[in-house]
Amino acid sequence: MHSEKVLNRLKTIEGHLRGVIRMVEEDAYCIDVIRQLQAIEAAISKTSALILEDHLNSCVITAVRGDSEQERERVLKEIAEVFEMSTKV
Amino acid sequence: MHSEKVLNRLKTIEGHLRGVIRMVEEDAYCIDVIRQLQAIEAAISKTSALILEDHLNSCVITAVRGDSEQERERVLKEIAEVFEMSTKV
Amino acid sequence: MHSEKVLNRLKTIEGHLRGVIRMVEEDAYCIDVIRQLQAIEAAISKTSALILEDHLNSCVITAVRGDSEQERERVLKEIAEVFEMSTKV
Amino acid sequence: MHSEKVLNRLKTIEGHLRGVIRMVEEDAYCIDVIRQLQAIEAAISKTSALILEDHLNSCVITAVRGDSEQERERVLKEIAEVFEMSTKV
Repeated sequence: MHSEKVLNRLKTIEGHLRGVIRMVEEDAYCIDVIRQLQAIEAAISKTSALILEDHLNSCVITAVRGDSEQERERVLKEIAEVFEMSTKV
Repeated sequence: MHSEKVLNRLKTIEGHLRGVIRMVEEDAYCIDVIRQLQAIEAAISKTSALILEDHLNSCVITAVRGDSEQERERVLKEIAEVFEMSTKV
Repeated sequence: MHSEKVLNRLKTIEGHLRGVIRMVEEDAYCIDVIRQLQAIEAAISKTSALILEDHLNSCVITAVRGDSEQERERVLKEIAEVFEMSTKV
Repeated sequence: MHSEKVLNRLKTIEGHLRGVIRMVEEDAYCIDVIRQLQAIEAAISKTSALILEDHLNSCVITAVRGDSEQERERVLKEIAEVFEMSTKV
């Protein structure tokens, strides 16, 4: 279900994070570290949005068109939940 | 389509914001003003989540079940967009 | 302590919010309402940043240069707190 | 300047991220992946706040008490900048 694109982005983020850990070990300037962490957060958010788009175009369509009302409600509730959560991180 | 609940929340937020304007006019302590603005942002986010939930349970279901592939794509794309945007505000 | 600029921005935001309340009353499209609310949140964040900048250049300088260690700690702790909170709204 | 605590947190986050990459490789459910990414973002924000607190209690105090107005302005401007940025990620 997940595109290769998602995996590649996450691996890039992992490399970025390892770079920040090295910065901290080498006692880099605090503000530079914070800025790198903010860039990582922005990259993670973008990746989440990509995953959600995949999800909307696969599972959500299947569930909404399916016969199970319970399943449909579950899938739509999850989207509302991750949306609400996304405003807090 | 919009629940009374959404309208009431927005009116409460408007009252809260007017209170903050008064605080600024009366030269309240900066940090107290910032905290109130953060509380208002949190309340707006919660209201957006509520509106999205209503939307998922009405327009989105209709569009996904409908015959127009174009309409379905538009509706799902919008959700991915507001999700991505939500991580930036 | 607060610049006229802060007050003007907050009044503009209030006008924007009243416009959104009208949109909801007139049953505007959910996604359009959410987008307006996201724009309002972004404007509030910008205003908070402006207030913090004023604060850093007035109270914080006074406190850090002052003789009271307790007062200095309080002022710096507050900034760390609003920063942490800002990542959640 | 950086506490051991900051380094440990970043290493924990790296482990968490590697776990999410594995989840994606094993085709885990989209929403579960998004939730884990949101947890990682929250952990990064908390770490940034910790770094800022260290920074306020070291460099900022030195700069504000120092004789260079230029240096003081630079340091305070940086804090306003990361605060403004923090509201966008």
